[in-house]
Amino acid sequence: MKLQLLGTADVRQVPVYGCDCRACRRARREPAAVRRPCSALLAVAGERYLIDGGLSDLCERFPPGTLQGILLTHYHMDHVQGLFHLRWGKAEPLPVYGPDDPDGCADLYKHPGMLSFQPPLEPFQPLQLGAVELVPLPLAHSKPTFGYLFRAAGSSAAYLTDTKGLPPETERFLQQQSPDLLVIDCSSPPGVANRNHNNLDEVLAIRRAVNPHRLVLTHLSHKMDLWLLDNPLPAGVVAGHDGMCLEL
Amino acid sequence: MKLQLLGTADVRQVPVYGCDCRACRRARREPAAVRRPCSALLAVAGERYLIDGGLSDLCERFPPGTLQGILLTHYHMDHVQGLFHLRWGKAEPLPVYGPDDPDGCADLYKHPGMLSFQPPLEPFQPLQLGAVELVPLPLAHSKPTFGYLFRAAGSSAAYLTDTKGLPPETERFLQQQSPDLLVIDCSSPPGVANRNHNNLDEVLAIRRAVNPHRLVLTHLSHKMDLWLLDNPLPAGVVAGHDGMCLEL
Repeated sequence: MKLQLLGTADVRQVPVYGCDCRACRRARREPAAVRRPCSALLAVAGERYLIDGGLSDLCERFPPGTLQGILLTHYHMDHVQGLFHLRWGKAEPLPVYGPDDPDGCADLYKHPGMLSFQPPLEPFQPLQLGAVELVPLPLAHSKPTFGYLFRAAGSSAAYLTDTKGLPPETERFLQQQSPDLLVIDCSSPPGVANRNHNNLDEVLAIRRAVNPHRLVLTHLSHKMDLWLLDNPLPAGVVAGHDGMCLEL
Repeated sequence: MKLQLLGTADVRQVPVYGCDCRACRRARREPAAVRRPCSALLAVAGERYLIDGGLSDLCERFPPGTLQGILLTHYHMDHVQGLFHLRWGKAEPLPVYGPDDPDGCADLYKHPGMLSFQPPLEPFQPLQLGAVELVPLPLAHSKPTFGYLFRAAGSSAAYLTDTKGLPPETERFLQQQSPDLLVIDCSSPPGVANRNHNNLDEVLAIRRAVNPHRLVLTHLSHKMDLWLLDNPLPAGVVAGHDGMCLEL
């Protein structure tokens, strides 16, 4: 099982348009420091599933036949934006899985094109996709949102974004799993409150509760990047970056 | 007055994802044949106005301070998509003008960020923006849509997309103007019906009615491009392309 982080930004991305902070200036100089919309690619036994569709170049990255499905965490624009173009393609229907959100985003449900929206996933009800089993985990966000636990070949990875803290039942479920890898929303530096996203304090509280083997931060804001320029992360915590490959 | 066509595609763009027609294959080989979301840049006396925001790279194309405003023809996703990222920038508020559409698109009105949505424009009520006067012209589309007549320094240009035919009052208005330049939605080849967009027959009927000095087609589908590979356009009709500069 391989999880590649395709994008690791919060909604504003890095660099933020017009921002002159050190983190945004660095991202304009160094392509490796750019953060694009939060998304990932799960590869297991020759199959590939896209987790969230916020990247604007999905059509170039994934020619027809290279994806077996799309998993959505939720229907905020920065997580689905790339689907608005992809949907008009000439290709086999592509299954899309996600939470029960009657609103969806704009006219995606009304005009799905080649996207084949599947019945909403049920919290904690496992779904087998090829060689991977996924478990949808309710998160605490401003729109119905699922994180996912992936299990394959004796390994497990939890991908939890977007969220502020964890609902108690999701935290209890993950405590029982102790996943090998936890990839989690860490939008803000410690001490900085954010209504719908974790800061680093909240991430560390979740780590204490869930006890994953490895912990990787995603959904980072330019303010989190600015903080990282001057501060080390606690031992065992790694900041994700666009393109990062996590092997299990 | 200069009008640059930034994008000249219909909603599917060219190449269409997964399409193997000659026009799409050519666009994959030749960057000059790629068509991106239909949009344009109006430049008059040192000021620049973006017409529609469907391009995904607005933040890179237009650093803060390089645009004086945004004109929207309507709120379909392929005409506003790039605004969802731009809005979170750190910059002076950017005025956005457009038709009266209470729905807008997704949460653009609710979370405008640095976009400053102005009161809806009124049909046929001129608005002075710097050195250019614009007149909003109702079009015939599936959502409230304005074309625009631009007047500056004794020249006039009409930009009419998206539309199928013209409402009678808009046609009458343009008959009286005989604009120097008409840029118009021509999504489909002659004889091909399209519920919400012109085909070439409908464009030629509009030309007969309006009698512009120059006529440039935009909002072209891959099927229109395919037709153009084998068929000449009537005299005086030019197919637009991305990046095309029209001087008046």
